[in-house]
Amino acid sequence: QNNLLSATGTTIFTVMSALAVEHGAINLGQGFPDYDGPEDVIEAAAAALKDGRNQYPPMSGHPDLRQAVAAHNRRFYGLEVDANAEVIVTSGATEAITACLMAVLNPGDECVLIEPLYDTYLPVVKLLGAIPKLVRLTPPKWELPRAELAAAFGPKTKAILLNTPMNPTGKVFTNAELAFIADLLERHDCYAICDEVYEHLTFDGWKHVPLMTLPGMRERCMRIGSAGKTFSLTGWKIGYVTCDRSLAGNVTKAHQNLTFTTAPNLQRGIAVGLAKDDSYFAGLSSSLEAKRDRLAAGLARLGFGVLPTQGSYFVTTDFRPLGFNGDDVAFCRTLTTEAKVTAIPVTAFYASADAPSHYARFAFCKGDAVLDEALARIEAWL
Amino acid sequence: QNNLLSATGTTIFTVMSALAVEHGAINLGQGFPDYDGPEDVIEAAAAALKDGRNQYPPMSGHPDLRQAVAAHNRRFYGLEVDANAEVIVTSGATEAITACLMAVLNPGDECVLIEPLYDTYLPVVKLLGAIPKLVRLTPPKWELPRAELAAAFGPKTKAILLNTPMNPTGKVFTNAELAFIADLLERHDCYAICDEVYEHLTFDGWKHVPLMTLPGMRERCMRIGSAGKTFSLTGWKIGYVTCDRSLAGNVTKAHQNLTFTTAPNLQRGIAVGLAKDDSYFAGLSSSLEAKRDRLAAGLARLGFGVLPTQGSYFVTTDFRPLGFNGDDVAFCRTLTTEAKVTAIPVTAFYASADAPSHYARFAFCKGDAVLDEALARIEAWL
Ligand SMILES: CSCCC(=O)C(=O)O
Ligand SMILES: CSCCC(=O)C(=O)O
Repeated sequence: QNNLLSATGTTIFTVMSALAVEHGAINLGQGFPDYDGPEDVIEAAAAALKDGRNQYPPMSGHPDLRQAVAAHNRRFYGLEVDANAEVIVTSGATEAITACLMAVLNPGDECVLIEPLYDTYLPVVKLLGAIPKLVRLTPPKWELPRAELAAAFGPKTKAILLNTPMNPTGKVFTNAELAFIADLLERHDCYAICDEVYEHLTFDGWKHVPLMTLPGMRERCMRIGSAGKTFSLTGWKIGYVTCDRSLAGNVTKAHQNLTFTTAPNLQRGIAVGLAKDDSYFAGLSSSLEAKRDRLAAGLARLGFGVLPTQGSYFVTTDFRPLGFNGDDVAFCRTLTTEAKVTAIPVTAFYASADAPSHYARFAFCKGDAVLDEALARIEAWL
Repeated sequence: QNNLLSATGTTIFTVMSALAVEHGAINLGQGFPDYDGPEDVIEAAAAALKDGRNQYPPMSGHPDLRQAVAAHNRRFYGLEVDANAEVIVTSGATEAITACLMAVLNPGDECVLIEPLYDTYLPVVKLLGAIPKLVRLTPPKWELPRAELAAAFGPKTKAILLNTPMNPTGKVFTNAELAFIADLLERHDCYAICDEVYEHLTFDGWKHVPLMTLPGMRERCMRIGSAGKTFSLTGWKIGYVTCDRSLAGNVTKAHQNLTFTTAPNLQRGIAVGLAKDDSYFAGLSSSLEAKRDRLAAGLARLGFGVLPTQGSYFVTTDFRPLGFNGDDVAFCRTLTTEAKVTAIPVTAFYASADAPSHYARFAFCKGDAVLDEALARIEAWL
């Protein structure tokens, strides 16, 4: 059997969700809302099942959705792309990330990854025979260590995988950081896989800036969006890649070998979603901002060190002030089994054992009553 | 960019479907029905969108569907599997095939493939760094050359990819052939990826036999089914892998990196489908058998050499008796642009240029009127 997969664990999100179910814990681990997506989007997807168009849609996506993704790029980022040649719909952002890595990496190529990192990045880079070059952000403010990042680039570097807004840190990369990265990409003639699934989930006036919109970046970036995150429908598994036509060919051919195409009724539903007016997107971020405030303030009150979150579904906390004796895995297991609240140990986002082990990640994309109950349970446990 | 993908073409199915649209041709190329799947399955999927369960289902599949796949294995093949540990739902059979190959192959491993072969097999094997060993069936009866097959196995062989009922040949492997393959797998300690998406589409009393049901094969086979093909809903992209628990771990972890999970409402719809009574499955094959007869007889009447089809959506034809001067690609293009009927050139199912180039594949999973009109168009053109 494949050695890399045999050595990989089951994703921490599945492990902790199963543990939450087993112990009747409130699941603030895996990042999914406990509320449903917009009714009109769901209605559109249900109606689309019933008009006899349940066969393969075009491989690179239903035309309605590709048009909607192009229009969305124009509306929010002033990014002009050809819906027919520069948008590829995938079966979720996970597939999109794998397809984009597959599109550009050859065995032996180096790929720069930024820790803490989402847990499919590293195994996929390795499965493709490429060589990961890891650079760590510096907690608790998750600063980008520029000299180290620059040093990670070399003659063999083919790509960087950049996640902003970032999971699990909640960091939104600044224009200055993006410009620094853009400069490295130009100097080393590299591509960027841009995991931007939390693009609409930013707070406190932080705005997501796609690396692809920076000068010189139009032809280097594969920008990935997620309908699951943008419409609170994580189970639908609709992702979309926006990239220059010079890259779209290989991304499409990777997709051809990974899933080939994606359910047309769900694509048509999401096309309706992307056409929603600005107030929907503003409402989404303000509603999540209020949830972040609720959970962050509550955890701070209980004594957690709460790190700032500028975007995403997540708040990272330092549990050392609580006096807990043990690492993050022990903390998250104990919290689940004893307090009946589940969080994710942040070491799961690191490749090696020398990671900071005093952080736990909580998801706040939950009903207010659920957040309050989780806080009450932790308080009772403490 | 990745060299293997850069050297790969866009799949012939997409190319020919696009050409069909461009020329207003009847599309007997890409294999999808022009009729809809069962109403109760579609209704169940539509209803499942509306009860607030649109977030991530479990990674290895919705429990209802995993139970249904296990029950289906028991009902049709007497195969007992643990729904919780030996069934993995994927976003279509394409993902399933890629996940199974990824689960077992290491770079440098050899994988036996049987030509003519579906067009994702070879690029995926190569992308994984494994080495394809190709063995050709002998047309026009698509006999298995046993000595050559045996010779393709060696100390580095890790797996075979077996497609039965087979696309594009319509061949159903016999018990004797399967036993021969099983023996090779035992002798060389290999796995089998079993692409059985056409399992319910067999004719003339031919019955599909999963290699997994042969003695000694329970722990060597990854058996792949397709809801798209079994319920005439090709766009839904729901596949399922059945395999021993000793293999399920790596298949699941491959899936984790490819798509992670699959839309829950479509999974719940297919669970309803798999519970349908035997008459549904019998009706599906007898209806397709009648369509095969209609198209095969019509093409024979027009002068094609029609090869026998024991299963699948497809009939392969030899167009030399028509007096056409040119290869299969020229024939299929001319048929599309002039006769306004689209077929697939069978050389697209071969890895090298020395393939037989006088065969065109026609899909018969279409309404009777459409099949008749296609025949009339070809007749008028001739
Ligand atoms: C795909 S499961 C994990 C969801 C998620 O993005 C997270 O919890 O980090
Ligand atoms: C996934 S597109 C091709 C459908 C099919 O299996 C075929 O036409 O051979």
